Amino acid sequence: MGARAVDVPALVDSARAGTPRAVARLVSLVEDAHPALREVMAALVPHAGRAWVIGLTGAPGVGKSTSTSLLISAFRGRGLRVGVLAVDPSSPFSGGALLGDRIRMQDRPHDPGVYIRSLATRGHLGGLSAATPQAIRVLDAAGFDVVLVETVGVGQSEVEIAGLADTSVVLLAPGMGDGIQAAKAGILEIGDVFVVNKADHPGAEATVHDLRRMVSLAERAAPGGWRPPVVRTAALQRVGLDRLMQALDKHRAHLDETGELCRRRERRAADEIEQLALERLRTRLEAVEGQDGLGALSAALAAGRIDPYAAVDVLLAHADR
Amino acid sequence: MGARAVDVPALVDSARAGTPRAVARLVSLVEDAHPALREVMAALVPHAGRAWVIGLTGAPGVGKSTSTSLLISAFRGRGLRVGVLAVDPSSPFSGGALLGDRIRMQDRPHDPGVYIRSLATRGHLGGLSAATPQAIRVLDAAGFDVVLVETVGVGQSEVEIAGLADTSVVLLAPGMGDGIQAAKAGILEIGDVFVVNKADHPGAEATVHDLRRMVSLAERAAPGGWRPPVVRTAALQRVGLDRLMQALDKHRAHLDETGELCRRRERRAADEIEQLALERLRTRLEAVEGQDGLGALSAALAAGRIDPYAAVDVLLAHADR
Repeated sequence: MGARAVDVPALVDSARAGTPRAVARLVSLVEDAHPALREVMAALVPHAGRAWVIGLTGAPGVGKSTSTSLLISAFRGRGLRVGVLAVDPSSPFSGGALLGDRIRMQDRPHDPGVYIRSLATRGHLGGLSAATPQAIRVLDAAGFDVVLVETVGVGQSEVEIAGLADTSVVLLAPGMGDGIQAAKAGILEIGDVFVVNKADHPGAEATVHDLRRMVSLAERAAPGGWRPPVVRTAALQRVGLDRLMQALDKHRAHLDETGELCRRRERRAADEIEQLALERLRTRLEAVEGQDGLGALSAALAAGRIDPYAAVDVLLAHADR
Repeated sequence: MGARAVDVPALVDSARAGTPRAVARLVSLVEDAHPALREVMAALVPHAGRAWVIGLTGAPGVGKSTSTSLLISAFRGRGLRVGVLAVDPSSPFSGGALLGDRIRMQDRPHDPGVYIRSLATRGHLGGLSAATPQAIRVLDAAGFDVVLVETVGVGQSEVEIAGLADTSVVLLAPGMGDGIQAAKAGILEIGDVFVVNKADHPGAEATVHDLRRMVSLAERAAPGGWRPPVVRTAALQRVGLDRLMQALDKHRAHLDETGELCRRRERRAADEIEQLALERLRTRLEAVEGQDGLGALSAALAAGRIDPYAAVDVLLAHADR
């Protein structure tokens, strides 16, 4: 099944013509790390690089999906096509994204200018880090003007992914011990725009204040760059959307004026290449068999008969040929 | 500074004699991926393998730290020494664990039978996956009978780490949309014991019910193995600790009787070896310079002049020599 033949040129043409099923099929090939992916990416690369990639990160419950929904409306109002990738921490065992987000976000079934898709990583050894830039490329090359990437933003890998967007939006909500949690997960450092959602809830003012203080402390340490704005919204009540859009536009202008857009995209490309290379090397490591293979070495390490670095020496000596 | 000389044999002796400062120094060497780590691990391996490694995973706010605190008391009551590792998603930019958990958990400063430490990953390219098994080995070899590993359990990498414990405890709390969130993060599949904490809150009964249903569905799919119990606690009120300890003991007996303990430890060892090997390979990739280096290749990919797989071919051709 994994090796089912794929007519790549036809599929790519069809996706570029705006057929949702073709886009969906391409994202599935990414998820599965399908053998045809190499040909797919080669076909897409020349058409990519036009979309504005916006990352949305925040802990469960801060209102990411509602905010995403609002942003879709706002960009649609400008006549732009919007693609959304909901990046789920994939189950390491069952290997699938569950239905939650998919169901909640599919409330625009009839608008061909919007495509929403959750992303799992069934095939990629490198997990989300390998799959996400490729899935972004699919939507980008398919002609979506804006690609919104929604991540949970608590784990390290999700934070890294969010950091690879052109513009990273970090969502917080009052209460929830967000301050420390946010800082721990590193999302403070990746935020280009901070949103304090649920601004009608108690404690919103304090959260905004804390964030502004942290942003200004960071700026004192590294002056002259972009100073991330802190925007208040109440997404459920559709409040604050104009302020958020202004902040996004301002950051987009900053990216263009300073050459930062280019730098970020090169960083994203570097990450993608490195993840794919490591994936290939990992396959080589796992293919080593017998006494010098991972199975025998890990049994020896668990039994205290070898140290982990000596085991790596043995394994690499074989994997290198 | 990274290359500061370390008297490894003295440090290891001192850690094994129970000196907290020596243990702390060894964990710091792990965090920094210090050059002396190779010697450190070789010295520790023969003394490791005695501790019972228990993972505690759950989203922020479910009461992990309070539960950890209770477990410490219970194991101390049995006269056992307890080491705790709080695995923080490290900030990818500032590279440090913040103070939150450290402060909250340091409420037993005078008990030499307890050692609590948060773990960051400043030096390891492989992040938490590379550092955690090594930090566990430090506490194990230093003579702690039980090592509790606390992880946030939302991101993929944290879930993977929790899955490497001898016994994985998954904490949930009523409400919070835990059901879907838990399943998405894959923590349902790794739980050996489920704890519904805050059992005095509304919705606790429903959460317990949902979990039991999911556990029994999973058992129908793979019968004959361990059936994860679902335990109710109210950690703040110190309710349910006896039930939790019983469940843990039962799982421990299961591990010993079935040989599963050995299998899990070999899996942990395999993961450690693989992470260290990939780390070394990554260093090689990043050392390639010039036209065939990661910088030039990622610029070409971002500009649409090369596809990612072709870039990997070029990079690996050089990294392999």
